[in-house]
Amino acid sequence: MTDSIRWGMVGGGINGFIGEVHRLATRLDGGFSLVAGCFSSNDERNRASGALFGVPEDRVYGDFATMARYEAARIDGIQAVSIVTPNHLHFAAARAFLEAGIDVICDKPLSTTLSQARDLEAIARENGRTLAVTYNYTGNAMIRLARQIVADGALGTLRLVQVEYIQDWLTDNIEQMGQKQAQWRTDPQQAGRAGCLGDIGVHAYNLASFVTGLQAERVCADLTRFVPGRQVDDNVQATLDFGNGTRGALWASQVAVGSENALRLRLIGDKASLSWEQEHPNQLQFTEHGSARQILSRNGAGFPPSLQHLCRVPAGHPEGYLEAFANIYGEIRQQLQGGSGDFPDVGDAINDLAFIEACLASDDNDNCWSALER
Amino acid sequence: MTDSIRWGMVGGGINGFIGEVHRLATRLDGGFSLVAGCFSSNDERNRASGALFGVPEDRVYGDFATMARYEAARIDGIQAVSIVTPNHLHFAAARAFLEAGIDVICDKPLSTTLSQARDLEAIARENGRTLAVTYNYTGNAMIRLARQIVADGALGTLRLVQVEYIQDWLTDNIEQMGQKQAQWRTDPQQAGRAGCLGDIGVHAYNLASFVTGLQAERVCADLTRFVPGRQVDDNVQATLDFGNGTRGALWASQVAVGSENALRLRLIGDKASLSWEQEHPNQLQFTEHGSARQILSRNGAGFPPSLQHLCRVPAGHPEGYLEAFANIYGEIRQQLQGGSGDFPDVGDAINDLAFIEACLASDDNDNCWSALER
Amino acid sequence: MTDSIRWGMVGGGINGFIGEVHRLATRLDGGFSLVAGCFSSNDERNRASGALFGVPEDRVYGDFATMARYEAARIDGIQAVSIVTPNHLHFAAARAFLEAGIDVICDKPLSTTLSQARDLEAIARENGRTLAVTYNYTGNAMIRLARQIVADGALGTLRLVQVEYIQDWLTDNIEQMGQKQAQWRTDPQQAGRAGCLGDIGVHAYNLASFVTGLQAERVCADLTRFVPGRQVDDNVQATLDFGNGTRGALWASQVAVGSENALRLRLIGDKASLSWEQEHPNQLQFTEHGSARQILSRNGAGFPPSLQHLCRVPAGHPEGYLEAFANIYGEIRQQLQGGSGDFPDVGDAINDLAFIEACLASDDNDNCWSALER
Amino acid sequence: MTDSIRWGMVGGGINGFIGEVHRLATRLDGGFSLVAGCFSSNDERNRASGALFGVPEDRVYGDFATMARYEAARIDGIQAVSIVTPNHLHFAAARAFLEAGIDVICDKPLSTTLSQARDLEAIARENGRTLAVTYNYTGNAMIRLARQIVADGALGTLRLVQVEYIQDWLTDNIEQMGQKQAQWRTDPQQAGRAGCLGDIGVHAYNLASFVTGLQAERVCADLTRFVPGRQVDDNVQATLDFGNGTRGALWASQVAVGSENALRLRLIGDKASLSWEQEHPNQLQFTEHGSARQILSRNGAGFPPSLQHLCRVPAGHPEGYLEAFANIYGEIRQQLQGGSGDFPDVGDAINDLAFIEACLASDDNDNCWSALER
Repeated sequence: MTDSIRWGMVGGGINGFIGEVHRLATRLDGGFSLVAGCFSSNDERNRASGALFGVPEDRVYGDFATMARYEAARIDGIQAVSIVTPNHLHFAAARAFLEAGIDVICDKPLSTTLSQARDLEAIARENGRTLAVTYNYTGNAMIRLARQIVADGALGTLRLVQVEYIQDWLTDNIEQMGQKQAQWRTDPQQAGRAGCLGDIGVHAYNLASFVTGLQAERVCADLTRFVPGRQVDDNVQATLDFGNGTRGALWASQVAVGSENALRLRLIGDKASLSWEQEHPNQLQFTEHGSARQILSRNGAGFPPSLQHLCRVPAGHPEGYLEAFANIYGEIRQQLQGGSGDFPDVGDAINDLAFIEACLASDDNDNCWSALER
Repeated sequence: MTDSIRWGMVGGGINGFIGEVHRLATRLDGGFSLVAGCFSSNDERNRASGALFGVPEDRVYGDFATMARYEAARIDGIQAVSIVTPNHLHFAAARAFLEAGIDVICDKPLSTTLSQARDLEAIARENGRTLAVTYNYTGNAMIRLARQIVADGALGTLRLVQVEYIQDWLTDNIEQMGQKQAQWRTDPQQAGRAGCLGDIGVHAYNLASFVTGLQAERVCADLTRFVPGRQVDDNVQATLDFGNGTRGALWASQVAVGSENALRLRLIGDKASLSWEQEHPNQLQFTEHGSARQILSRNGAGFPPSLQHLCRVPAGHPEGYLEAFANIYGEIRQQLQGGSGDFPDVGDAINDLAFIEACLASDDNDNCWSALER
Repeated sequence: MTDSIRWGMVGGGINGFIGEVHRLATRLDGGFSLVAGCFSSNDERNRASGALFGVPEDRVYGDFATMARYEAARIDGIQAVSIVTPNHLHFAAARAFLEAGIDVICDKPLSTTLSQARDLEAIARENGRTLAVTYNYTGNAMIRLARQIVADGALGTLRLVQVEYIQDWLTDNIEQMGQKQAQWRTDPQQAGRAGCLGDIGVHAYNLASFVTGLQAERVCADLTRFVPGRQVDDNVQATLDFGNGTRGALWASQVAVGSENALRLRLIGDKASLSWEQEHPNQLQFTEHGSARQILSRNGAGFPPSLQHLCRVPAGHPEGYLEAFANIYGEIRQQLQGGSGDFPDVGDAINDLAFIEACLASDDNDNCWSALER
Repeated sequence: MTDSIRWGMVGGGINGFIGEVHRLATRLDGGFSLVAGCFSSNDERNRASGALFGVPEDRVYGDFATMARYEAARIDGIQAVSIVTPNHLHFAAARAFLEAGIDVICDKPLSTTLSQARDLEAIARENGRTLAVTYNYTGNAMIRLARQIVADGALGTLRLVQVEYIQDWLTDNIEQMGQKQAQWRTDPQQAGRAGCLGDIGVHAYNLASFVTGLQAERVCADLTRFVPGRQVDDNVQATLDFGNGTRGALWASQVAVGSENALRLRLIGDKASLSWEQEHPNQLQFTEHGSARQILSRNGAGFPPSLQHLCRVPAGHPEGYLEAFANIYGEIRQQLQGGSGDFPDVGDAINDLAFIEACLASDDNDNCWSALER
C-alpha cells in the first residue's frame, strides 16, 4: 500500500522462527514494507536474507549500530525496527534505535533484567519514541473480548486467575543435540536466568495481566530443571497474590509431554467465569453463575462491533496465531501513523520482568512469598 | 442374591445425598442387603428411612452404639456397616463397630484429624477388621487403567503430577441461606478445620496418590476463604514435592463458577503423559513423547482383560459416577467374602490426613514448605 | 424394597449382554425382584443362571409357555416379564405372557414384522396389559429435556431432524469367527430382514421420533452390505420426510471404524437448534439463532424440577447408559404400581417397524421414496 | 519480493468478503503484487477500491474486457488474474483473460453450468493457460495429510465418504432485508440454479473428492427451500455412490442454526477411519480398527516432512482459513513461476458441476438416482 510504514529488522535471518513470524504478521497486516535489516551476525547469511526478503543491498547492515545511524540519516529511512534476536541482545539494539529516533518493536522479553527494562523506558520517553513489545497472544480477538468482559464487570469481583502455558519440546536434552532454538533459549548467557519462566511463563503472566488489568503483588514460585544437565528452569509453578483478595496460579512447562502450545487462561469471579485456550483460539467459554455455559465465538453471535476490526473473516473461518500477531502490528501501525494503538509496550515489559525477578527470588528463597518490585 | 453381605448404615436418612449414593452403589453391585441402620438422629426421620429402605423396624436403631452392640449379638447380624454421617461423627461410630467385630466402610475423610485416623488403624488391626474408605473415583475403570500404565513404567520417570478438582456450588454464602449440605460442610465443628481441602481437595490428592503410588513429602499450600463470612477454606492451591524429583500441583475450589465436578488428573513423565477428566470418565488421553495423542476408552480397543471386571457394559455405553462407586463396593465385597479386594482403606486415609494437616500447617506458616507426617 | 414388582425374564442367561443390562437397570431402579425365569434354551445354562440370579429352582422354567401358565396360576406369580431373547422369539413369548395376564417388557425391536407388532398391540389391548419396549436411550434425562424443549416450541418450526448411530463392531466378518452376538444379529432368521437397520437404525429413528413427537411419512433408504458374505445390511442411510416441511436424515452403521456407540441427534428449527451425543450423555447443546451456543447439563443450572426424578446424582457426577435404562424401568414400575409411566410401548414399536419396512421397501425399489404404513 | 507475480482482480471491491480474502491470501503467501483490477461495476467504488489497494489509476478498469485487452498488451501486464465476482460473471471474465493469454484463478464454482466449465477447459487448453479454481479448504495441511493417508492405503478399502457443510446465516430471509451477500447468492440469475448446493455443497463434494481421489457415479439428492420466498435451495442432502462399493452421504445447509462454518469430512475404510473438522483445522482424527483413536496435529509428532512447506508455524500455533487459502495461492504461484503446483483446477470444476447438475436432476426426478455426466 502507498502509505506503508518503512520498516527494518534486527535479527530474523533465513531459517529462524520468530523473525519469519514477524514478517508474516506484517504482510497479513499489509501496512509495513521491509526496507532495511541486520538479519544475522553471519555476513553471508545476512546478505542472503536481505536478498531473499527483497531488501536493497545497501540497506543490509553488518551491525545494528550502523543500521541505526545510517537509517536515521536517510530521508527515506525506516520509521520502525523490529528486534527479534536472542534476548540478551534486545537491550543494546533497542537503545541504539530509540536514541537514533526510530520507533522500536521488540520481541518478548524486552530485556533480561528489570533494570534494563526501566532504562529502556526512560530512553524511549526521553526520545519521544514508541517501544512496543510483541506479546502476540494479546492480539487475539477473543482475548480482547475477554478483557472487555472483565472491564465491563461481568465477572463481578475477580477471585481467581489461573493460567497455564505448557509445551513439550524441551522434554529431552535437545540443546545438547544441536537444536539451535533450544541452545540459545536454555543458555542463561543468551536467554537470561529465567528459562521456561522467561520464554513462556512470561507470556502466561502477561496474558493474565492484559485481560484482568491486574499485577501480582507477590508470588511463591517453584522452578524446576527436570532435564539432567539443563542450565535453566524447564518448569515453573507459582501461586500469585494480586491483592484485594484475588489469587492466582501459573504453571508453565516445556517438558509437558503431549502438549504443543497449550496456553490456557481461566478467570473466576463471583458472578461469572471465562476460559480461553490458545490452541482453539476462536472460542471463549463464558458462564454466568447459575446459567448454562456459553461458547462465544470470534465474530459470531453477539460479538461486539467495537472489536470487529480485529477479525479478518467471518465466524467459523478460523483465525489463528498469525492473525493475532498481525493484530498487534496493526495496532502499532495505527499509532505510528498518528492514531492511537492498543498494544503491549515497555510498561508491560517492566511489569513482566518484575514478575520474573520475583519468581526467581522466591525460588531462591525456598519458595516463600516474594514481592514484585514496583 | 443368595450370598449377599448383610449390611447396615449409620447416617444416610431420607433426602441426604451421599447415603443414597452408597445404597445405589450397593444395588448396582448386587451383593449387599441393607438390613439394619441408624439413619438419622431425628427419630421420626430415622424410622421413616428404615421403612422406606425395607429395614425391619427392630433393626432401626436410635444410636450407633446400640446398633453395634445388638447387631454384633445377633446370629444374623450385619457383617459390615457404612458410615455416611458428617465427618466429625465418623471416628466414634467407626470405633464402635470395629470394636464390636463388624467391618467398617467409611465415607471420606475417615476422620477430622490424623491422630484419629491412626487410632482407627490400630483399632481395626487389633480387632482384625477391615476399614475401607470410599474414595469413589479410584473405582473408575480408566483410573485403574491409568494406575496400571504408571506401574508398567510407560510414563518413564514421573516428573509432574497435576490434579485439580473444582466446583462452584459454594460460590455464594449458601450456608447462611439454609442449604443443609453447605451448613455442615462449612462448619468446622462438623467438617473439621479443612473445608474445601477436606471435602474435595482430599479426593484430588487421594486420586493422584492412588494412580501414581506416591505420597507427597512436603507441600506449600495457600488456603483461601473467598466468600465473606465463611468459616473454612473454599479454595486451596498447593505445590507438592513427591521426592525423587517429582513435583506436582493441586487446585481444589468450590467457588469455581461454571465448574460442576471437574476433577482432572494429569501425569507427565519423561516418556509419556496421561490425562483424565471425571466429567467424561470413559476416556483417558495417553501420549507418548513424539507420537500422536491417543484416546483410550473404557472397554475399548486395547483395554486390558485384567480390568474388564470393572466394566458392566461395552465401550461406548458410558458408565459414570455410580458405576465407579459400585466398583469400590464390589472390591470390598470380594474381600469380605474371603477373597482379595483392591480398595482404599485406613492406610490411604492416614496419608490423606497427613496431607490435609501439612496443608493447614503450610497455610498457617505463610505458605512455606511443610512436611507430611510419616 | 417391600413393594417390589415380582419380575421374571425370558432369555438373559449367563454371559449374555442385554439380559444383564436389564437386571442392572432393575437393580439401579430398586423396584423389581427377579423371582422367575426361562433364561436359556440350554437346560444346564438355564439352571445355572437361575441359581446365580437367586431364583428359586422351581421357578426356573424350561420354556416360556410353561412359565407363563404356571406364573399366572401362582398367587405370588410374577407381575411382569422382560423378554430379552433374539428378536425372532419376541413375538411368541410376548403373546404368551400377555394372554396369561402378565405385563410384558420387551427389548427392541418388538418383533421382526410390522404385522406381528400390530397383533401384539391388539392382544395387549384385549387383555388389558402393558406392553413396554425398552428403547433405553429415551430414558436419558437430557433426551427428556430435549423433548420438553421441542414441545415448548423453543426450536420454532422444526426444519431438520438429523440422527446418526454408528458403531464399528461388525467391521470384520466376525459372525464367521464364532462371535455369538454377531451370529444372531446378522442372521435374518433370528434378527429379521433388517440387520444394522433393525439393530441400531431403529434406535436412532425411535429417538428422533421420541424427542420430536413426529413420524416420518416416507423415506428414501440405501442399505448396504459392506462386509463380504454378510446376510443383512451393515449400513443404512436414509432421507426422511416428516411432512409439513420437516426433513431429516438417518445414518446407522456397524462398520464405522473408530466409533463405539456414537448415537447423535441434531434438531434444527427456525428459532433454535439442539444437539446430543450418547457418548457424552450428560450434556445437551442448545443454540438460539443469533445467540451463543449453550451447554446444558444434567441437573445443572436451569435444569427443570419436573425432570429431576430422572437424575440420581448432582450435576457433574456423570450418569450413563445404565441410568437411562433404569429410568425406563422406573417409569414402567410407576405404571405397574398404578400410577402413570412415561415409557415407549407397543405404539412406538409399530411406528418403528413401519419405518423399518418402509426402508426395506425403498431399498428394494432402487432407493425411491417409500411411504410408511399408517 | 522481487519476483512477485503481477496480479489483477476482477471483482473484490471495498467491503466485499471474498475479494479481501483473496488479497489476504496473496499477502500471506508473499508472492503476488496487485497491480491492476476491475473491482466493481460501480465506477466510484471501483476507483476507491483501486486507490485503497494501491493500484495505479490507469490500471483500474471499468470492465473486464478492456482490462484483459490492455493488460495483455502491456509489457508489464498482469501474469494472472483472480475472478471473484458473483458466479454468473465468472464464465465471460475467465474466457476473456484466457483468450488474452493471461492465467486465471477463479473462485468456485467456476461457472453456473457444466457446459460452460467444459468450454473454459477447452479455451484454457487452446491458449495454453492455467485455470485454477480456489477450493480453499483443499489447501489445509491436514487435508493434504488426509489425502496422503488415503493414497497410502492406510484406510484399506474405502467404504464410506461422509461429508457435511452446515451454516446458519440464511436461517432467515435476509435476502429480503438488504443483505447483499445473501441477495446475489440466493438469486438464480447471479448464483445459478443451485443455491446452498452451489455455494457450499460443492465445497463439501470437492473436499471429499480431493481427499479420496474419487468421483461419484450417481446421486440421490433432496434439495429443500426451508425459508419461505427463497428462490434457491438452502439445504441439500444426498446419497452418493462412488462405485466399487464405496458409498457416501453429503449434507449441506445454510439454515443449520448454531453452525457457523461446520465443514466436516469423515472417511471410513475397512482398516481405518479419518475425521476432520474445518472449525478446528489443525487436528485430524485417525483410528485404525482395533486401536485407540489418534489425534494427529499439523506439524506435530509424525507430521510428514513432505507436507511441511504447507505449514508456516510450529505445531500448537493454530493456522486457519487464510493459511489454507494462501497455500492454494502458493501452489498456483509455484506453477506460474515454472514449477509444478498442486491445486484444484478446471478439471475439478467440471467434476463438481457434474455433481451439481446430477443433484439438480435427481431432485427434479423425485430424488431418484441420477448419474453424473462424464
